[in-house]
Amino acid sequence: MATTYRVKFDIADEAVEVPAGTMLTAAAEKAGIEINQPCGGQGRCGQCAVQVTSGNVRRRSTMRLSPEDVEQGFALACQTVVEGDLTVVVPPQEKIQQHLTTAQSAADVTVPDGYDSSRDQVLRRVPLTLTPPSMDDQTSDWARLQTALLQKVDLGQLDISLPVLQKLPGVLRESDWQVTPLLFAEGGLQSGGRAEIIDLLPGLIPEDEPLWGAAVDIGTTTVKVMLVDLISGKPRSQASEYNAQIARGEDVISRIIFASKGTGDQTLRELVLESINRLLEQACRRGKTKPADIYHTVVSGNSTMIHLLLQIPPSSIRLAPYVTVANHIPVLTALEAGLYTCPQGKVTCLPGVASYVGSDITAGVLSSGMSETDKVTLFLDVGTNGEMVLGSKDWLVTCACSAGPAFEGAGVHHGMRATTGAIDEVWINNENLEASWRVIGGGKPKGLCGSALISLLAEMLMTGVINKNGRFDYSKDTARIRKGSHGGEYVVAWADETEIGDDIIITEVDIDNLMRAKAAIFAGFTVLGDSVGIPLEAVEQVLIGGGFGQYINVEKSIQIGLLPDMPWDRFEFLGNTSLKGSYLALLDYKNREEITAIASKMTYIELSADNRFFDAFTSAMFLPHTDMTLFPSVQIDPN
Amino acid sequence: MATTYRVKFDIADEAVEVPAGTMLTAAAEKAGIEINQPCGGQGRCGQCAVQVTSGNVRRRSTMRLSPEDVEQGFALACQTVVEGDLTVVVPPQEKIQQHLTTAQSAADVTVPDGYDSSRDQVLRRVPLTLTPPSMDDQTSDWARLQTALLQKVDLGQLDISLPVLQKLPGVLRESDWQVTPLLFAEGGLQSGGRAEIIDLLPGLIPEDEPLWGAAVDIGTTTVKVMLVDLISGKPRSQASEYNAQIARGEDVISRIIFASKGTGDQTLRELVLESINRLLEQACRRGKTKPADIYHTVVSGNSTMIHLLLQIPPSSIRLAPYVTVANHIPVLTALEAGLYTCPQGKVTCLPGVASYVGSDITAGVLSSGMSETDKVTLFLDVGTNGEMVLGSKDWLVTCACSAGPAFEGAGVHHGMRATTGAIDEVWINNENLEASWRVIGGGKPKGLCGSALISLLAEMLMTGVINKNGRFDYSKDTARIRKGSHGGEYVVAWADETEIGDDIIITEVDIDNLMRAKAAIFAGFTVLGDSVGIPLEAVEQVLIGGGFGQYINVEKSIQIGLLPDMPWDRFEFLGNTSLKGSYLALLDYKNREEITAIASKMTYIELSADNRFFDAFTSAMFLPHTDMTLFPSVQIDPN
Repeated sequence: MATTYRVKFDIADEAVEVPAGTMLTAAAEKAGIEINQPCGGQGRCGQCAVQVTSGNVRRRSTMRLSPEDVEQGFALACQTVVEGDLTVVVPPQEKIQQHLTTAQSAADVTVPDGYDSSRDQVLRRVPLTLTPPSMDDQTSDWARLQTALLQKVDLGQLDISLPVLQKLPGVLRESDWQVTPLLFAEGGLQSGGRAEIIDLLPGLIPEDEPLWGAAVDIGTTTVKVMLVDLISGKPRSQASEYNAQIARGEDVISRIIFASKGTGDQTLRELVLESINRLLEQACRRGKTKPADIYHTVVSGNSTMIHLLLQIPPSSIRLAPYVTVANHIPVLTALEAGLYTCPQGKVTCLPGVASYVGSDITAGVLSSGMSETDKVTLFLDVGTNGEMVLGSKDWLVTCACSAGPAFEGAGVHHGMRATTGAIDEVWINNENLEASWRVIGGGKPKGLCGSALISLLAEMLMTGVINKNGRFDYSKDTARIRKGSHGGEYVVAWADETEIGDDIIITEVDIDNLMRAKAAIFAGFTVLGDSVGIPLEAVEQVLIGGGFGQYINVEKSIQIGLLPDMPWDRFEFLGNTSLKGSYLALLDYKNREEITAIASKMTYIELSADNRFFDAFTSAMFLPHTDMTLFPSVQIDPN
Repeated sequence: MATTYRVKFDIADEAVEVPAGTMLTAAAEKAGIEINQPCGGQGRCGQCAVQVTSGNVRRRSTMRLSPEDVEQGFALACQTVVEGDLTVVVPPQEKIQQHLTTAQSAADVTVPDGYDSSRDQVLRRVPLTLTPPSMDDQTSDWARLQTALLQKVDLGQLDISLPVLQKLPGVLRESDWQVTPLLFAEGGLQSGGRAEIIDLLPGLIPEDEPLWGAAVDIGTTTVKVMLVDLISGKPRSQASEYNAQIARGEDVISRIIFASKGTGDQTLRELVLESINRLLEQACRRGKTKPADIYHTVVSGNSTMIHLLLQIPPSSIRLAPYVTVANHIPVLTALEAGLYTCPQGKVTCLPGVASYVGSDITAGVLSSGMSETDKVTLFLDVGTNGEMVLGSKDWLVTCACSAGPAFEGAGVHHGMRATTGAIDEVWINNENLEASWRVIGGGKPKGLCGSALISLLAEMLMTGVINKNGRFDYSKDTARIRKGSHGGEYVVAWADETEIGDDIIITEVDIDNLMRAKAAIFAGFTVLGDSVGIPLEAVEQVLIGGGFGQYINVEKSIQIGLLPDMPWDRFEFLGNTSLKGSYLALLDYKNREEITAIASKMTYIELSADNRFFDAFTSAMFLPHTDMTLFPSVQIDPN
């Protein structure tokens, strides 16, 4: 007889008895407790974290958890098995969420080979021992510092900011004339070049002492911050949370509209700064430092996010002829930018290309490596807009298609974001056309998130629930296909199975919205290829960045004609390419220059003015496409 | 019989009848009204201004009065004669004072020959007509502006500040793509150089439209502001008032001490900024513009004043080895500096040389012209400290001697500042040793200001009241020489003649203080001459700047050995050389560079570490000097 253990969850009335080796999620289920598992129990999302306060467990994975978390007993319920009598604290939803803001979506970055901070950094600490002034040498403090510094670093011009001048005499005397000025040189420390002293640290700072920088990715939905030790190049901690602007509009267009009214622009700036500053604080707490010690922050984001961050009026982005105020932002101080890092520290906003191709894309292209490869590459970042880049090291063309928010669950009758209660995967039985599904968090479903919509569309097509036009086949023998108040519809979940007490359905209107979205994206591919005379089948790799890519099902995406039909091994999911690009630019100014070069090199194709786009869009308004020869692998059941 | 007119002063009970051509001051006297005349009725100081509300007058001079003042009937009572029946308003003292803050001490500057704003200015307006964006040209606003601008101005780097970026899209569209960016280039607009757009003005600004700058002189006692149209180069208006820091210490040392305690540094910064901003407001009101339209401000002042303005801790200035934190301050924005001019406008603090030789002196040297002459020149600025520069276009040596505030009336028993009620000139009758005097404002005396002290010392020496050692000759047959509670003393005014109801006296202690002060200054001359091997008699001209110079009596100053004995025509009073220097640096960046060159070129001699100084000081502790051959013109009555 197998050993059994008693597991007591704090929020359960009684302990449950389970065999050794039982997964904590299963034990919880037995105790009648619902534990969130948005990633479906794959140990990827971290949302099922619980705290084991006593007893032995074995963790199969601790992804998303920091060493300190583990030390404090945190464990992923979906990846942890019972090996003793346990008491387990299930943190309240809010607390998990809060915890996750610091843990989720950690970009998986590694320090580039051969990274050398003394060569690659825009920041440099120069420890100096000064000769104190005397009656024979009444040189001013600033001239004294300058002379000593210029003996160690060959510069043509050395600037100093007022706040550093203000602290100069105190630091010099309190640290007995041993100080470490911190230099910033936008284009790297070049012989004969220009640099600025942005801080003066007391004492002689050892070379390997961490020097802090931050990479920030401002997404329309999520803001992510990575704290990096610029000496070793290693990320120390990460944090992310919803962009607090979300309460003022879910997509860039509604935010631009909000910004244009009254003090809306100021409100949105304050909201995103709240998010960033809170995340910096969190990342620093985990990294055992403080935001005031961060000296350089590199920011990427779509053009609207960058405009809103800096309170640059974004209206022209939304209105024809769709221009930004600026794609290249000068390097700012943290004070100017509104960050709570060292006030004289610098903030570099990476350059974008156009209104709908921002620095999230240019940074993404850098981090994807496509600008250094010979292979014809398609880089794709799908959110509300589908931004895509086609090219290789020699050339790059880019466009953005207004896919609409359908794949984010918006504009769809039962659409929702990928949070607890969302169906994220749907299967339809080929025989009886019955639906089954998976729910994020495991309970009763509330609606359909983006990946479920792709899945559902593909399943309906493959099982003949809908035809290539997206129209329902009412001849099918199932109660799930019916005519509702919104026209034709398919019932994914019956009212008694749902959390909302209503049937969860997908309507013909929804399908139409989804088809428009996928058609827009596919038409984008087509126009990009056309514009350089390269057929899609010649694309050697498809690199998918952004949040969307994390949950996308390639097979089903190809089935509905969202992704081009090619062998699966040509597709690669890169995770948060924007944050990775920021990280790389933070490490090495040559990477920032490379991103600038990428931005300059990219040919932007404005689709709203391109007839080819309308043609391609019309052709793509079928499932998977009018031209089935483009999708040889998709075999639709002729029934 | 001469025509007579009736003059009614508002504060007099009845009108007075006076002959045509009577001076207003005389009419006032007849009416029993006291009108301030600090300059002794020479029409120099403006303090006697009254307002003629009806009737004809003839103004001999309107110095210190603006055209608007004259239009409103303002007239200098000491320079205006009656030519009809008049009603005259005598403004309350406070109001005069307030008026004078905007009018007094106007530096007498003229636009340099050949001034050309398009060549000499760091500021440049570039009117541009841009092609609006279209679907065929989606260039960002900033790139569009840059392209257009760089077609007109050849620059290697063009920067833009965030506030300008923020206003960019609005200004471009509201002004129909016709705009005038305002460029600032620290080193002048050089081909291939660097410039920054500090503002963007709507429309195409005509070339001759005024462009505003300000010159500021921060004195320990008085702050002066000059508003200048940088296109014509003409000063538009001036304003001055006491440095509001005065309430926290009268001299630099007491202010440094105040700054070092608690938030004293912040208080002092706020106080001087209050003064400057109020003066900018006043000058702009008179110039019919507003401070927000001032784009460049050039500031001169002694090193302590500059430190305090920028809240740079000044303690090291006061303590051995007497070093400044910085002599060269980077160009700041008005926002950083705390001025209420255009926030992105620039503030240039001119460079100083040492703790007690600041930019008031370097700017003074420039404006004096001594750095361009072949003549061996002594430049002198006496206040609390005596700062002096010896040299010519080829070389410059400088020193500062801590003269103490005796010549400013402080540290002297009945000393006071040169304001209403101060005796400013004394004469002693050679026969009976009786004193007569002149009082600023004309009433009963309250005390002795600096010029009176010089005068008194000289008169006492020349009449034998004191001997060469500054000791009283009690053998003289006069009640005015007596022994008092402070030792020997001389009665300048008897109690019943004074405002204070007490005898106004000068004591041996006072005399000692004054002798120390003059000895320090003369020893400074001696050391400067010695250090370059040039005897004082080889000095070809003595240029006297600063407020002190305005009221000094050369003859009497030579008699006491304060100034070197040379023909009077070698002395020249230049007025406010510091403000003039700021004005010149504001007009032409090459002048700023020249001031920087002057600062670098000056050899600073630290007197407190120089034995020659002590020797020279000791030798100068006689009236006029131990070595009478140095003062051949001074013939002391052998009695």
